[in-house]
Amino acid sequence: MPKLDFDVITLGHGSGGTLTHKLLEAGVFDLLKNPLLDTHHDGAILDLTGKTAFTTDSYVISPPFFPGGTIGELAVNGTVNDLAMCGAIPRYLSLSFILEEGLTMSEFWAVLVSIKTAADQAGVQIVTGDTKVVERGKGDRIFINTAGIGMLHPKADISVGRVQPGDKLIVSGNIATHGMAIMSVREGLEFETSLQSDTAPLNHTVRTLLDEFGPAIHLLRDPTRGGVATVLNEIARDRNVGPTRIGIDIQQASLPVLEEVAGACELLGLDPLYVANEGVFLAIVAADVAERFVGRLQTLPYGESAAVIGRVTTEHPGQVVLTSRIGGRRVVSMLVGEQLPRIC
Amino acid sequence: MPKLDFDVITLGHGSGGTLTHKLLEAGVFDLLKNPLLDTHHDGAILDLTGKTAFTTDSYVISPPFFPGGTIGELAVNGTVNDLAMCGAIPRYLSLSFILEEGLTMSEFWAVLVSIKTAADQAGVQIVTGDTKVVERGKGDRIFINTAGIGMLHPKADISVGRVQPGDKLIVSGNIATHGMAIMSVREGLEFETSLQSDTAPLNHTVRTLLDEFGPAIHLLRDPTRGGVATVLNEIARDRNVGPTRIGIDIQQASLPVLEEVAGACELLGLDPLYVANEGVFLAIVAADVAERFVGRLQTLPYGESAAVIGRVTTEHPGQVVLTSRIGGRRVVSMLVGEQLPRIC
Repeated sequence: MPKLDFDVITLGHGSGGTLTHKLLEAGVFDLLKNPLLDTHHDGAILDLTGKTAFTTDSYVISPPFFPGGTIGELAVNGTVNDLAMCGAIPRYLSLSFILEEGLTMSEFWAVLVSIKTAADQAGVQIVTGDTKVVERGKGDRIFINTAGIGMLHPKADISVGRVQPGDKLIVSGNIATHGMAIMSVREGLEFETSLQSDTAPLNHTVRTLLDEFGPAIHLLRDPTRGGVATVLNEIARDRNVGPTRIGIDIQQASLPVLEEVAGACELLGLDPLYVANEGVFLAIVAADVAERFVGRLQTLPYGESAAVIGRVTTEHPGQVVLTSRIGGRRVVSMLVGEQLPRIC
Repeated sequence: MPKLDFDVITLGHGSGGTLTHKLLEAGVFDLLKNPLLDTHHDGAILDLTGKTAFTTDSYVISPPFFPGGTIGELAVNGTVNDLAMCGAIPRYLSLSFILEEGLTMSEFWAVLVSIKTAADQAGVQIVTGDTKVVERGKGDRIFINTAGIGMLHPKADISVGRVQPGDKLIVSGNIATHGMAIMSVREGLEFETSLQSDTAPLNHTVRTLLDEFGPAIHLLRDPTRGGVATVLNEIARDRNVGPTRIGIDIQQASLPVLEEVAGACELLGLDPLYVANEGVFLAIVAADVAERFVGRLQTLPYGESAAVIGRVTTEHPGQVVLTSRIGGRRVVSMLVGEQLPRIC
């Protein structure tokens, strides 16, 4: 951390005046250094040509430091992954903070360093940003917004409209890990575990898959808030109109879940299908490439536990149906209510 | 407002599950309708070719409803204006909310409607977004982040490096109006006034000026937080290195300030140079076009009070020097401390 003549954030750091400049120049610009950010203008000028993906998310996770990550890593990886799910190669991020008066500079610095590390790992540049400060009790230490820009992969043709009956549903890794890691340290819920959040940049893995499988990949989605069940319901619902109405079948026995996560879920009476993920994606691919796709994914970073977990069907359009380990079938609905607030 | 079975925001509305969907489908998607947003994916796919400007700001203004505007209008206009200041034609916005549990749906709807109106007026589309909810006491009703993408105007060549000695400094309108309008309703400061915020989209006006004056416009900046004094100091400081070090002279007598604003500033002991603006920009232009530029600007929306207020000089590099009405000269520094928290 650079030497500073202040050790907590005050309202003046959001004034836009000398204190804001001190905060930014106290190493922030140095830390995140790149030619685009260095212009210090109100925005960055980018050279883009072609189909561009654009996305945003605000991050309000509590606590901001959690087993396996920080709100900063989450804010980079989450937006990088949203771009990857569009079939894009992430390139540029914006970074905007809402800080609560009293946040310590050492905490802020730790978040910044984790942002820098995550951005480097994902291969993206932070090119523009903003910092606001709110009074004590009007925020919660640190909220972050990132928006991201990526260039569409030339072979990507990803949309819910391309999902076809017979397609296979694949999950890239163990589910429910992020949610259970956060729960394990959440006030009132603490339980003994060594679980770590699975937050990770999925873009390099997705890019390799797009290089090799191209348009045989029909849809990509990352099951964050609301978990796998919610995303699958969104897909089934979006495709419960039009000429080919579809539903989704999933096999409970195929779902990869860490033993420790499964145990914690059982303890708390939670279904892993509804628990949030950060470093996992769902892919719906043409049936004839599914086995090869999973085989390849298992050799790529964050893909070692990949598995086919279901298929697309015309049998129960608009619905997600789970076949349990003992062969029973039940409809899986979208998450109702709130399982754990501020999971991301 | 659409018919709803809830009238306040709860934590469940941030779950990503059924309540989030209800909130979004309760007219939000309808209200902001456009083909890009309608894909309901994690991001929007845009067709961009050429130099692209990218910017972001978070908005935490208190109160969120103020004379002359709402936090929603501010969030659209502010980001639109940042793009315009880059010499870009704003095209696409992202929109991300951090809502405090307990916000009423009617307030949220009013903000959404103001966003839609402002986006239409500016000619931009909201193409992607996010909604998070935090517990009561961990936020303050509503925070908004917008990020924006615009296409660089083909004639724009705007950067602090292009500012030359002899250039004229122009302000597009009356200064300090936004800040004083917010102060007039801020708890503990209320005073009798009919002042309205000057929040406005400046992009159409800037585009016309770029069409007509092109590269004779060397720099554009909007003096929001920290006011005119802070932005001018940023420019002088950024150009206090390199072969041609410059300073800025301004004339107090030339500064356009509404009488009511000047009176309120005097009452509170504030210098209008440090008070925030929202619908005003500063332009530094080649001396030989300055008079024509101001004349034209006065005929355009939000430009009627435009004036030449100063010039660029080599006399006191790195410094902003004001000549007062009675002829005295003093150095104007950057805003020190915090004049009014959460002005934008």
